[in-house]
Amino acid sequence: MLLRLRQGLAPHELRTVIDEAGRQGATVRFLDDARTLAELEGPFQASARARFEDLWAVVSILDAKDAPELHQTVRPGAGGVDTIEAGHARFGGGDLSIVAGPCAVEDRDALLEIARHVADAGATLLRGGAYKPRTSPHAFQGLGEAGLALLDEARALTGLGIVTEVLDPRDVEKVGAVADVFQIGARSMANSALLTEVGRYSAEHGTPVLVKRGIAASVRELLLAAEYVLNEGTNRVILCERGIRSFDNVTRNLLDLGAVAHLKGATHLPVVVDPSHAAGRADLVLPLGLAAVAAGADGLLVEVNPRPETTHSDGAQALSPSAFVDLVRRVEALAQVCGRRVVRVAREAV
Amino acid sequence: MLLRLRQGLAPHELRTVIDEAGRQGATVRFLDDARTLAELEGPFQASARARFEDLWAVVSILDAKDAPELHQTVRPGAGGVDTIEAGHARFGGGDLSIVAGPCAVEDRDALLEIARHVADAGATLLRGGAYKPRTSPHAFQGLGEAGLALLDEARALTGLGIVTEVLDPRDVEKVGAVADVFQIGARSMANSALLTEVGRYSAEHGTPVLVKRGIAASVRELLLAAEYVLNEGTNRVILCERGIRSFDNVTRNLLDLGAVAHLKGATHLPVVVDPSHAAGRADLVLPLGLAAVAAGADGLLVEVNPRPETTHSDGAQALSPSAFVDLVRRVEALAQVCGRRVVRVAREAV
Amino acid sequence: MLLRLRQGLAPHELRTVIDEAGRQGATVRFLDDARTLAELEGPFQASARARFEDLWAVVSILDAKDAPELHQTVRPGAGGVDTIEAGHARFGGGDLSIVAGPCAVEDRDALLEIARHVADAGATLLRGGAYKPRTSPHAFQGLGEAGLALLDEARALTGLGIVTEVLDPRDVEKVGAVADVFQIGARSMANSALLTEVGRYSAEHGTPVLVKRGIAASVRELLLAAEYVLNEGTNRVILCERGIRSFDNVTRNLLDLGAVAHLKGATHLPVVVDPSHAAGRADLVLPLGLAAVAAGADGLLVEVNPRPETTHSDGAQALSPSAFVDLVRRVEALAQVCGRRVVRVAREAV
Amino acid sequence: MLLRLRQGLAPHELRTVIDEAGRQGATVRFLDDARTLAELEGPFQASARARFEDLWAVVSILDAKDAPELHQTVRPGAGGVDTIEAGHARFGGGDLSIVAGPCAVEDRDALLEIARHVADAGATLLRGGAYKPRTSPHAFQGLGEAGLALLDEARALTGLGIVTEVLDPRDVEKVGAVADVFQIGARSMANSALLTEVGRYSAEHGTPVLVKRGIAASVRELLLAAEYVLNEGTNRVILCERGIRSFDNVTRNLLDLGAVAHLKGATHLPVVVDPSHAAGRADLVLPLGLAAVAAGADGLLVEVNPRPETTHSDGAQALSPSAFVDLVRRVEALAQVCGRRVVRVAREAV
Repeated sequence: MLLRLRQGLAPHELRTVIDEAGRQGATVRFLDDARTLAELEGPFQASARARFEDLWAVVSILDAKDAPELHQTVRPGAGGVDTIEAGHARFGGGDLSIVAGPCAVEDRDALLEIARHVADAGATLLRGGAYKPRTSPHAFQGLGEAGLALLDEARALTGLGIVTEVLDPRDVEKVGAVADVFQIGARSMANSALLTEVGRYSAEHGTPVLVKRGIAASVRELLLAAEYVLNEGTNRVILCERGIRSFDNVTRNLLDLGAVAHLKGATHLPVVVDPSHAAGRADLVLPLGLAAVAAGADGLLVEVNPRPETTHSDGAQALSPSAFVDLVRRVEALAQVCGRRVVRVAREAV
Repeated sequence: MLLRLRQGLAPHELRTVIDEAGRQGATVRFLDDARTLAELEGPFQASARARFEDLWAVVSILDAKDAPELHQTVRPGAGGVDTIEAGHARFGGGDLSIVAGPCAVEDRDALLEIARHVADAGATLLRGGAYKPRTSPHAFQGLGEAGLALLDEARALTGLGIVTEVLDPRDVEKVGAVADVFQIGARSMANSALLTEVGRYSAEHGTPVLVKRGIAASVRELLLAAEYVLNEGTNRVILCERGIRSFDNVTRNLLDLGAVAHLKGATHLPVVVDPSHAAGRADLVLPLGLAAVAAGADGLLVEVNPRPETTHSDGAQALSPSAFVDLVRRVEALAQVCGRRVVRVAREAV
Repeated sequence: MLLRLRQGLAPHELRTVIDEAGRQGATVRFLDDARTLAELEGPFQASARARFEDLWAVVSILDAKDAPELHQTVRPGAGGVDTIEAGHARFGGGDLSIVAGPCAVEDRDALLEIARHVADAGATLLRGGAYKPRTSPHAFQGLGEAGLALLDEARALTGLGIVTEVLDPRDVEKVGAVADVFQIGARSMANSALLTEVGRYSAEHGTPVLVKRGIAASVRELLLAAEYVLNEGTNRVILCERGIRSFDNVTRNLLDLGAVAHLKGATHLPVVVDPSHAAGRADLVLPLGLAAVAAGADGLLVEVNPRPETTHSDGAQALSPSAFVDLVRRVEALAQVCGRRVVRVAREAV
Repeated sequence: MLLRLRQGLAPHELRTVIDEAGRQGATVRFLDDARTLAELEGPFQASARARFEDLWAVVSILDAKDAPELHQTVRPGAGGVDTIEAGHARFGGGDLSIVAGPCAVEDRDALLEIARHVADAGATLLRGGAYKPRTSPHAFQGLGEAGLALLDEARALTGLGIVTEVLDPRDVEKVGAVADVFQIGARSMANSALLTEVGRYSAEHGTPVLVKRGIAASVRELLLAAEYVLNEGTNRVILCERGIRSFDNVTRNLLDLGAVAHLKGATHLPVVVDPSHAAGRADLVLPLGLAAVAAGADGLLVEVNPRPETTHSDGAQALSPSAFVDLVRRVEALAQVCGRRVVRVAREAV
């Protein structure tokens, strides 16, 4: 590891670095006369980098290739492969799955109708929020447990696994009883209490955790949110890019496909993309969904709703059922020329 | 209220607007032939605006002056004044208080030494984190309950009230037993479960809640975070600007004093500023602290630490004791020419 | 047109709106009693919207569909089609061209070698800067006229048309004598004197103008930069997305493919993408180039350089010759499944 | 100088660094075995840092304290002081001047009225645009030469010096004949042809150049824009912070006072602030102007207009004459407690 230190450190200040190295069983060599560059020789634990970053005397870590963190080394699939399975879905290792459904669970008939439709059209997982994070306390907050029950019913009917958000560490057990994949929303990405709690649940029950990038989170911050989950002993984490905040308003958020392409080389964890929340407009979901797959995404999260006018959140970005059929068909064709394949639920499975 | 609706709405889609108005006891008048502009006449509840914003048929709220939300109407002080008292501190209504202390509570002797010093120098509240939100799970997470006990001891010793962060809704009771002011950190600003829980506690026990602006939160989102707390029945909310994320790196975050000036006209809630976290550098805390007061801030949160080299987080931005003495003196002089005053703990009070 | 006006305008203030409408031959109708909403009936010129936006009394233009600007109506191709031809290249209307070459023109042998290579591999235009916009006056500023002469020689040798940047309105004639396409760089997007001058040249000589989006320009500002060029009487403008500034640093800029997808529905002008400058890293040029095509781009600008270590700017993002061959092959396959085709120089043409 | 190099450089790639050092008369020492850290010993010219930054082999400059650029060493005042004089105005070295006037020069009577008013109220320079940079070609572009003539008349009448923008390198002579200070607008900050041309004029005639920070320019980019001017041999450059682009919209731009505080320690050049363009709202100009002075600004640029309703640009942010009187009075009081003074035109001078 290569550290850049503050200039002009007093001996007792330099000592904090040497002591930390000692605790980690590493040796320190100063490269320059002014002792502002320190080369450390390990071996290092996954926690080593963060421990040195925490020191006042350290300005920055110039190189930490010999001290990888969990998100750099963990293989998310069983047996050391890079594919996470969840119900009929598979993410990573060349497999791509489509997650579709309404933004929020609002009405039983509507949910079951959408679930049937997206299952037929090629989705392998159903998304839908029972607990909704909302900017205003006066906005619709989701149906809560009643929504979870409806998701359970939709799964029984269609065979689709369920991706649903958990907002509160006190709800992890309750949501875990229904979810095939936990969703950590963008607003919760820095909620360490929640990340830790779902990590523990995942380590025990194997439920994968899909972590959405916060609206202004750096790629490193997203990876360290995943690190909180991985640190509890699970290896089943999926990363999700869903657009970041910027100054322009032709799209609601700015989809960062450079981050997706980068992540494919930086971690073994699958990376999926939510073009619906990024665009905030139904007409851009198809081009952005295709672009995401071309950039390397292992899956898509897409909002589908035949009657957005009856919903209380995000209706403007939902695809109609026929637009969703078209999207799946075109994603399949695109994935094929990129050497990947879209996973479908086998007929007999349903 | 004036709504802009989608173009070309079908009758059953327009009906969702008319029905919502009906539920709220409001009447609807369409201004243009195409029925894309709807004028609603109330009276309206604090929740009215959010309910209409939630509708798919509504593009935007053009005007909602006749439907104010809680953060626009609540007077934070007892008896309808705009001053929040917390121990010896007073925020708002011309009163300005200085909150000072280390970033995290790490060591008993150091904490008590800092507490004594900032009390002598003019702080009325002691800040310090027992629970620290950290980007990496491998970084120091705070001393937890042991940290709370040390804060309690520092208060007993100095008479300073305690401002400390709560991160998890399950810790609200525990933190509330020690805190004179709850701090909701920037990473928790969108954590509605936490906001609701501290709101409930504040409604019952009167503990003020200081809500920091999220790193990429709009001013309206900050106000709606406050709305979650106010919605539980308390009126004791303090807003805090602490810098937002931008592209430049001469400061760690970009302090948004335009937001402070705007908020002073938009809400009765006090607005304080944390120049330490914004700057991320000790040498800019003084000019930014003075600028904050000139822009209208009702208080400052400042990190002070005589031995930053021994700390595990944010040492680079901590003022030395003597720099803090200088800051208080200059803030007092500046506040005076701005027609405000810095509250001090009276000698006999300690 | 639908205008939102300031509240409480005095009669002489309202009069400025009515007078401007009068000058434009439009009629005004106020929709609400408070006269804050004005509906204007035209017909309108392309300048109408900007004229009303300029008025102090106008808060915003709510709708201007009946007053389109030039970038909304101009068909860029001869005879009313949407395809711009430049040498062997064609942009738009289902045709996609690849522009490749070094960042700057630095050395004769290197330039000719790259030109031969990219011509063979499938590029139809050669890019390369004779005039380089640099952040520091001490950095390499380009070879100037000597560089133009080398580009001329490369064209004669390979048949590739030349895309090159013009920085100064005084150089337009000189650059125009060599360029098959003018490039307006991101730093010049708001340089109205330059836009006007190249617009005049293009109106007279037909040379297309490729306008790159400024590093923090909104999509509307990009379109209005194009409007400056179109306003001089040419219809040959190509838009270019090349990444915007953001807070993360895994890529140098953040490629905004939502803007590309939006522009394909907002204007007839072709839209190309520069994944090299967006990524700032050679390893991400391929996935971002493919993503750009999937999102709807009509062409790519790609840096290619066999010996980046000898260059003075942007070497880190240049593709090697073999990586460029691979990119062209994969873009062709992807374009085909998207129903578009990559234009190649016919063998006999060279 | 301390350089970080790419990993795994071949000998001929390392050679590019050694050769550049040789050209500069510097020696190279590699600190680590892998030769990724190079310490260079000078002496260095002002251009040294940029030359090394330009090399492909160099990842970043870790330290360049021994190779300062012009903006770090130039003393802007005659005789080595830090005060720039322009007419009655003085910027820097404890002196603070207020520049006021309309956004654009539009009407003779209005201009003369404003000029008289701001001179009486305490401004020492009159600002006003004869050439206006506008987003749309259809918007009012300024009166051009007729506007310059009116500014000349206003100076003769009031004794105020003139600050006015130049947009086109071909206009530098013409604007220079009237301007006491050239203004380089935010959109022109990266226009190197223009910066060079005004630099040459300033070197010959002594006219100071006020460079506004681009809307998304980093502080370093602003300093390097100044470097272009200084590099022509003048030392009379003033920097101006006027807000940067962000995601929130309560203010038009986000005023970055951290940058102002940083610049006061990073350069001898005076730093002024334009709270009017930052706020975009008249009601926030006072608090932001005071905050700017508290943060260390050496002057303010303020828009003043008694009849904004008749203007074609930016009327919403102009102060009324009485609000300007109040601002000057309060800035004077504030400057005094900060140990600085606002320069006024002496009675007999007018």
